[in-house]
Amino acid sequence: MKTLAIDGDRLWRSLMDLARIGAYKDERTGLLGVNRLALTDADGEGRRLVKKWFEEAGLQVRVDRIGNVYGRRKGAKDVEPVLSGSHIDSVPTGGAFDGVLGVLGALEVFRTLDDARVTTMRPLEVGFFTDEEGCRFGTDMLGSAVAVGRIPLEKAYALEDKKGIAVKTELDRLGFVGTANERIAPPHAYVECHIEQGPILRAANMDLGVVTGVQAISWQELTIQGKSAHAGTTPMGLRKDAGVAAARICVHMNELATSGRFGAEMRATMGGFDPHPGLVNIVPGRVRCTVDLRNPEDVKMAEAEKELAAFLNKLEKEMGVAIEARQTAKTGRIHFSSDVQAVIAAKMKAAGYVFQHIISGAGHDAQEMASLCPTAMIFVPGEYDGISHNPREYSTPEQCTRGVGILLDTILELAG
Amino acid sequence: MKTLAIDGDRLWRSLMDLARIGAYKDERTGLLGVNRLALTDADGEGRRLVKKWFEEAGLQVRVDRIGNVYGRRKGAKDVEPVLSGSHIDSVPTGGAFDGVLGVLGALEVFRTLDDARVTTMRPLEVGFFTDEEGCRFGTDMLGSAVAVGRIPLEKAYALEDKKGIAVKTELDRLGFVGTANERIAPPHAYVECHIEQGPILRAANMDLGVVTGVQAISWQELTIQGKSAHAGTTPMGLRKDAGVAAARICVHMNELATSGRFGAEMRATMGGFDPHPGLVNIVPGRVRCTVDLRNPEDVKMAEAEKELAAFLNKLEKEMGVAIEARQTAKTGRIHFSSDVQAVIAAKMKAAGYVFQHIISGAGHDAQEMASLCPTAMIFVPGEYDGISHNPREYSTPEQCTRGVGILLDTILELAG
Repeated sequence: MKTLAIDGDRLWRSLMDLARIGAYKDERTGLLGVNRLALTDADGEGRRLVKKWFEEAGLQVRVDRIGNVYGRRKGAKDVEPVLSGSHIDSVPTGGAFDGVLGVLGALEVFRTLDDARVTTMRPLEVGFFTDEEGCRFGTDMLGSAVAVGRIPLEKAYALEDKKGIAVKTELDRLGFVGTANERIAPPHAYVECHIEQGPILRAANMDLGVVTGVQAISWQELTIQGKSAHAGTTPMGLRKDAGVAAARICVHMNELATSGRFGAEMRATMGGFDPHPGLVNIVPGRVRCTVDLRNPEDVKMAEAEKELAAFLNKLEKEMGVAIEARQTAKTGRIHFSSDVQAVIAAKMKAAGYVFQHIISGAGHDAQEMASLCPTAMIFVPGEYDGISHNPREYSTPEQCTRGVGILLDTILELAG
Repeated sequence: MKTLAIDGDRLWRSLMDLARIGAYKDERTGLLGVNRLALTDADGEGRRLVKKWFEEAGLQVRVDRIGNVYGRRKGAKDVEPVLSGSHIDSVPTGGAFDGVLGVLGALEVFRTLDDARVTTMRPLEVGFFTDEEGCRFGTDMLGSAVAVGRIPLEKAYALEDKKGIAVKTELDRLGFVGTANERIAPPHAYVECHIEQGPILRAANMDLGVVTGVQAISWQELTIQGKSAHAGTTPMGLRKDAGVAAARICVHMNELATSGRFGAEMRATMGGFDPHPGLVNIVPGRVRCTVDLRNPEDVKMAEAEKELAAFLNKLEKEMGVAIEARQTAKTGRIHFSSDVQAVIAAKMKAAGYVFQHIISGAGHDAQEMASLCPTAMIFVPGEYDGISHNPREYSTPEQCTRGVGILLDTILELAG
């Protein structure tokens, strides 16, 4: 089995073929981006294509009730499988690699085993999970969180997008409410190959990364209620400007993250900012905005959340606005299995790659699986400072081939 | 003629009838608001109704090439008319009085003269001007600015809304590209009755206000170009967060206006704030936001604009973002005719009203007319701190009747 190698060209063609679904031209740069927002028509088209590829590879395909799609390759024994996978939904302004590399990478591993007529001891499974990004319905890792039982199915079904359209409605419309039970039995292990989505590996000239875990993540949606007023006639002293309140929160969050008070790795972002009515000559009466906090340490995250809450409280009193904070996602620091990390590291070493251990800045389906079974991830570096969630997102064919090659070696070791 | 009085009930019924067009229920308060955004279907329906009312009042109606609609009542002599009017378009979250009171008030004056079979020496005209609010196509006072020649017709036609739909396209669609020349000959005088849209008259228990002019107004649209990035993986030090830049501008503008550096009457508002892509886990790569500055003194306004421009410059250097500022509206301090103000004040005094002179915080069609002929305005107080551009906008039947009564007396005096 030492001579087994994945077909990098075939992998790349699959990546590029799937990238055509939901492709759009970025108005400013002219680059092609990908918009396969969860459970839209484009996501449905992508789902049908990858499901067809699973079937064509001879996998036994099942769709569960939250729309997660699994393909199973039989092993010599009917025991717990080794599971691999990721997601194929994207942010509305995404690229060709985020999530997709893990799904099509696992498929390429299976195709390689088929070509070499290899049967593993354990069954192998590949899965793609519904709405990992969380951009549309407000909760990320949705499908994998339902699969491991962290989020109940009915609660996931009831989530709505901005237009009030529910997850269940869209799954039904696309024909992806399957019959398989959404709760999965603990696999033997889970391993996921993913782009880093950050600058660290590339800057350090690393071939690959072994992921040690995922930093703590806290998302909130804030609704700031002030008082709408005419911008020309309302003296400054009589205003309750929800826009100024939101702007002050944004500036405070940035200061909080750059101050070092919560460690050098604290990150804070206000990505959404929606003033009502949003017109030049009206003082915003209401603003909905988002908070994204990340920290590798649970204690520091809790301290940052507490400081932000205190600031919101202070603003309410000082500005006469009312601020409602709703937690839309929250996961503590995840530690991946040291055993699975050790297998991955050994395979990288054997292949002669330069690699390092790295904590993930982004959330991944693997963090949900880590609650069920030994789990770890392989990171592939990205060009252009590892930019992601952007049409410029790019990893070279060589980088992708290296990562999926290690995925093959790791799966073979774990599956016996 | 001393016994002439307008019919307050008839005026109120007209106001309420027109308020039904474009009516919507505010989700939060349950109040009925008005949305007759310029050149939408609702604006078209309102236009047709008011035009019909003009015709039913026996006025000679003409529509000009920018969609301004005039109704003419013959005088004993064919000389320059006394013109009155305002607008019937609204902000998307408006009330029943803004603009409408001036148009239907003038119509009520004409109806009153008809009932009493009075013929004035000069002809009388009432007009409603296209897109006074500027919320949709970015330039306020559009129709009246074209009428006085400040904005060329072709430039006005070419203005587009956010969806890329042009003024001309919408005027055509609604059937309001008239044949009358859009440039009007200087009338003898222009007088406009309008709600104050601010708290001053009501707080001082005034019956009415004589408007001395309009403060200087400066609108800008800012496009801040940063760098889109993943919120979880991008270290704070590597970001060019266009959202943070916009938030800092908003906070700075608020400080600028409340500092007293540009006088006690300086006002600054960021009403629009549109981050791209606007998602919880993406550092905004681009933000479009609006700037609304007001000051009663041209010199102080220029100083405030200069300080803001310097701050934008500083931010560009400090944060590595690019900021493009486009002026979307700009008018200097307008001084209304002291002669017309004197007539209005005399009529208020004769009627026994408590009144004061007041500068307008908002822009009005009258500021355009002031470049053509002697012009002034009558302000009617508003309840609830004079809130406007909001479903809570409200002036009582008594307040409206007082204002339009003075409009009648003033028009009669000016028209001889």
